[in-house]
Amino acid sequence: MITRASEQSKSIRENMRGGNEYVQFTHLTSELPAKARIFDILTLIPGASIGYHVHEGETELFYFMEGCGRVQDDDQFVDITAGDCMATFSGHGHSVENTGDTNLVLLAVIIKD
Amino acid sequence: MITRASEQSKSIRENMRGGNEYVQFTHLTSELPAKARIFDILTLIPGASIGYHVHEGETELFYFMEGCGRVQDDDQFVDITAGDCMATFSGHGHSVENTGDTNLVLLAVIIKD
Repeated sequence: MITRASEQSKSIRENMRGGNEYVQFTHLTSELPAKARIFDILTLIPGASIGYHVHEGETELFYFMEGCGRVQDDDQFVDITAGDCMATFSGHGHSVENTGDTNLVLLAVIIKD
Repeated sequence: MITRASEQSKSIRENMRGGNEYVQFTHLTSELPAKARIFDILTLIPGASIGYHVHEGETELFYFMEGCGRVQDDDQFVDITAGDCMATFSGHGHSVENTGDTNLVLLAVIIKD
């Protein structure tokens, strides 16, 4: 099943998980397999963030496509840039902040246990 | 768990699934959740292809990041470009060919049923 870029729906989440500004979601496909929860592109404008939260019963994989930022990976703070990957397994937590002056763009997929 | 771009391992598959040339895989993370099989960037040079094959017991999601190509989606042939998404569910088949003059780059994730 092909979903053209022009057909992909978008949504906005303000102050996501207690973060700053908003995150734009591009939902790459309207149909997902049973064990996936999202397959989306997330765009954070400069200064935007997703607050720290823990995933339970699922794993989230991020691939950073554009921009740079700072993430919390459990209790560690790490600067990331395009090309880096972050895996947050069940029982672990993360946050993301765009610390650059261009958009931070990442692909996110959530896979249920 | 963060994996830097510089830490990601790469591999080459020649004539993948009977296709032309080779496909370069960048393995974004060395640890995956139980229900995922790959979370990789695939790079096809001009003329390279992955031959038609069917997925059973799993779904493959493609996000086309750069370039353009032609895919087979079951019995349909479709031209794709950056930003498009392709979902191949269990029991369905696909192929991918780089028909452009620049690399075709896509992110692929396989999620088990």
